[in-house]
Amino acid sequence: MKISVAQINTTIGDLQGNAKKMIEKISGAKHHGFDLIIFPELALTGYPPEDFILLPHFMEAVAFYLDQIAEASKEIAVILGLPRYNPYRREKGFLNSAAWIQNQKIMDFADKILLPTYDVFDERRYFEPGLEPKVWDIHQYRVGITICEDIWQHSGLLESTLYKQDPLQQLKEKHPTLVINISASPYSLQKFEKRMQICLHAAQFLECPVILCNQVGGNDSLLFDGNSLYVDSTGLKKRAKSFCEEEMTIDLSQEAPTITVKRNQIEDLYQALVIGVRDYFHKLGFQKGCLGLSGGIDSSVAASIMAEALGPDQVLGIAMPSRYSSPESIRDATLLANRLGIDLQEIPIEPIFDSYLSSLLPFFRGKETDVTEENLQSRIRGTILMAFANKMGYIVVSTGNKSELALGYTTLYGDLCGGLALLGDVTKQQVYALADWINRNREIIPLYAIQRAPSAELRPNQKDSDSLPDYSIIDQIVAAYIEGHRSPQWIAKKYDYPLGLVNELIERIHNNEFKRRQAPPVLRVSEKSFSIGRRFPIVQKWV
Amino acid sequence: MKISVAQINTTIGDLQGNAKKMIEKISGAKHHGFDLIIFPELALTGYPPEDFILLPHFMEAVAFYLDQIAEASKEIAVILGLPRYNPYRREKGFLNSAAWIQNQKIMDFADKILLPTYDVFDERRYFEPGLEPKVWDIHQYRVGITICEDIWQHSGLLESTLYKQDPLQQLKEKHPTLVINISASPYSLQKFEKRMQICLHAAQFLECPVILCNQVGGNDSLLFDGNSLYVDSTGLKKRAKSFCEEEMTIDLSQEAPTITVKRNQIEDLYQALVIGVRDYFHKLGFQKGCLGLSGGIDSSVAASIMAEALGPDQVLGIAMPSRYSSPESIRDATLLANRLGIDLQEIPIEPIFDSYLSSLLPFFRGKETDVTEENLQSRIRGTILMAFANKMGYIVVSTGNKSELALGYTTLYGDLCGGLALLGDVTKQQVYALADWINRNREIIPLYAIQRAPSAELRPNQKDSDSLPDYSIIDQIVAAYIEGHRSPQWIAKKYDYPLGLVNELIERIHNNEFKRRQAPPVLRVSEKSFSIGRRFPIVQKWV
Repeated sequence: MKISVAQINTTIGDLQGNAKKMIEKISGAKHHGFDLIIFPELALTGYPPEDFILLPHFMEAVAFYLDQIAEASKEIAVILGLPRYNPYRREKGFLNSAAWIQNQKIMDFADKILLPTYDVFDERRYFEPGLEPKVWDIHQYRVGITICEDIWQHSGLLESTLYKQDPLQQLKEKHPTLVINISASPYSLQKFEKRMQICLHAAQFLECPVILCNQVGGNDSLLFDGNSLYVDSTGLKKRAKSFCEEEMTIDLSQEAPTITVKRNQIEDLYQALVIGVRDYFHKLGFQKGCLGLSGGIDSSVAASIMAEALGPDQVLGIAMPSRYSSPESIRDATLLANRLGIDLQEIPIEPIFDSYLSSLLPFFRGKETDVTEENLQSRIRGTILMAFANKMGYIVVSTGNKSELALGYTTLYGDLCGGLALLGDVTKQQVYALADWINRNREIIPLYAIQRAPSAELRPNQKDSDSLPDYSIIDQIVAAYIEGHRSPQWIAKKYDYPLGLVNELIERIHNNEFKRRQAPPVLRVSEKSFSIGRRFPIVQKWV
Repeated sequence: MKISVAQINTTIGDLQGNAKKMIEKISGAKHHGFDLIIFPELALTGYPPEDFILLPHFMEAVAFYLDQIAEASKEIAVILGLPRYNPYRREKGFLNSAAWIQNQKIMDFADKILLPTYDVFDERRYFEPGLEPKVWDIHQYRVGITICEDIWQHSGLLESTLYKQDPLQQLKEKHPTLVINISASPYSLQKFEKRMQICLHAAQFLECPVILCNQVGGNDSLLFDGNSLYVDSTGLKKRAKSFCEEEMTIDLSQEAPTITVKRNQIEDLYQALVIGVRDYFHKLGFQKGCLGLSGGIDSSVAASIMAEALGPDQVLGIAMPSRYSSPESIRDATLLANRLGIDLQEIPIEPIFDSYLSSLLPFFRGKETDVTEENLQSRIRGTILMAFANKMGYIVVSTGNKSELALGYTTLYGDLCGGLALLGDVTKQQVYALADWINRNREIIPLYAIQRAPSAELRPNQKDSDSLPDYSIIDQIVAAYIEGHRSPQWIAKKYDYPLGLVNELIERIHNNEFKRRQAPPVLRVSEKSFSIGRRFPIVQKWV
């Protein structure tokens, strides 16, 4: 059997466009003599469709486009993911399903059994678990159908949840000779390796090959890396590309050697951010992005990624120096813009800053200069960026990193302005690693920007280290608390930090929840980002 | 049996404070001869505790404080809500439980069976359903224990979900002589009436009295109205107050007449917003609020509510006129501030506006004046408000209403600045009704502000009606689409509007998702607010 694994990039809710794309791939696959073509989980709606599923007229349209796809599927078998009404009608109205089409006929549906409801996943909000895995007879193969999470639990690698059912055990009793897994499995660091282990485990347990077809591309915060897989019990046989569409071809009648894949984690992170920016802009119908270019490392890395994602001629950097900006900052911003080939404009904020200070003077007279004046400068910059966005059709990109966002070392309505927080899930230490990677062949980001002590330049001789511990400490504590859910006591003991310091940082994390609630969507690249996947109240007295 | 129904206002995560409050109430109830005291669902953690439940050291502290409460419960029975580890350990690690304490001993736990996972509720993210309802023998009563949603399904009044289990049917087989329901049932318009119907239905079906103990107070967006209930099969016997703490006393040995309660919906809405503001500020440890006072109806209503919630001396209105502000606006703002007894300051934004225009002129020369300049004015105002907040410890309150938020008739980082969107779930028509209610005894909000055509005053002679249909039309379409999930075709037909108009408004709703994503938390007063309860992607091509 010749199989085309169509790792496609869909747009949420674009039923017409997603269906059109699938129909084209089906037609191409048929033309090239494939017997079966596979599309990812919820390919028709894009993943995650969120509350669109609750709109009855949306679900009617899903059924309509499924018929269109069936109509176009002459002489080929098709498996694709889509939501459908729950005919059993128990707890929830919908099922997360795979449809099997053969010779223009919708043969059957298989329903997802294990529904992730943790972190960014909300599947129990919409879906009822399927009853048991299906095995479909396609071209002499007994094809076991699974959807994403269905194959994860049995490996023991899934930590956060333990389902009652075990679809792989149920499937084993049906003796499949091939297992297909349609997925919308989002990227995070080293996710590919984990996904490969899961597939390998399933192939060994079920004693048959496993083919995983994953979604690719960015949808709001969620990034999908593709990396579709073909494994058998001896190991990895084939892998589709990372972060781009591909039709991976598999001929089950051919013996294939086992391959090994070693990913560069920082390159993956870079590619994830590139596709995240590109898809956010292009799927929204925008071409141009602008950002504040301070000459610091965060905005330098962000500008480099935007130039790659959108093309240098679509990126505008705006330098907005104040009385506290160092000459090196403007120099480095200019150097970077020249090397990237992006446009750079300079707007000193002093006159506007002065006009605010004059207007506020009658009310603030006698009060000490404090964070108010620092925030003012940041908000003037945000307002200028938004004026360019409004007047000329840019989307503003916010450049703060995860470490700053965690501790609230950022100004709400200031540097947090933007449609997207490009680095909002990237730690400061990862920002440095990205800078090194961007400079791997030649210096693009000026070395001084990498080597200088980080500064917000909002008061004389300010350094981040005036109000923050070293970023290596912050990143360790943030990871242990945010991603690991560790207690302050555990963290202090494990890393040998004073408990007071750990408690202070955790308190800062919670006290700045209000800022993150109003931050732009972050591109999720870790297992726990500041997004819908992390839910803490603003008003709380735990810390 | 004498029962105290302790309708308390808890703070999320304040285990120590919540436990202390309960211990005081237990001590008082014992002193006054009560046999049993009841506290709401998840009373120990506050509802909703969200991801705090996932922190192991948080759950350890929950167990510690439960022991403290047990220790303090001599010679009285106590029922309280709290999360606990799931000893059955199946799909999720936790149970949403009621603990029964008697004479300092933890006698048993009963677990919530029906776990709402829709709208603002995420209970399947944390909890496993309980297996069956418990009946506890307390003082000659067979007390059936239910938790909030457990009693809703059987009434048929729950539309969004259909659970497999029916706890009331299971309970009936155990022949309870009293049913207790501990709740954290949030307010929305007419929720009290619905809740009473549910209880009445349960009392009739189970042929025994039902006592519902509800949480009261605001936690971020969610507002709880209290209104704890005591019903039997003949009707309502007793009701605790709306929107404040109360210990409702019930003596089951006494016959009680049936009462009727008629709520004023607008008064309820007003009280909900008052408690929402008060709890948001005070639970965060803030006393003072400021807002932009334009003389328009939204800011006038918001200021009136803030004055009631925080005290007039804790509220600062800032009038920030521009070249487009009418003299009546300042006049009305002054009148209102005087009548409310709040402080008013005036800061003209012209000099700052001019400085932006000058700085931007080299870049914008030759381009037409457009929404950019309107947004600039709004963002200057937002920045001024934030400067006052930073310098003097105010929380800024945003005054935009739900109709504006739906259509994006609001400026991100401008009038959307603030810790709280007070009117973010209140339609424009409800804003008018609130103004009338505030003026019910004497004119507080100037009549001109109520009667004039709404205007953002961001360009010469601007009226909302220049770019929006009439608010009565908007509110109808928004309600049908947002709350009712109706299709454009259905809406156009039902209300006899052109389909093009309906489609245009729905498109505006989705295209402005990016603004709402960065809006301050809204106080939820409808069945579907712009908050965690409504999840739509920013990037989509459905409309």
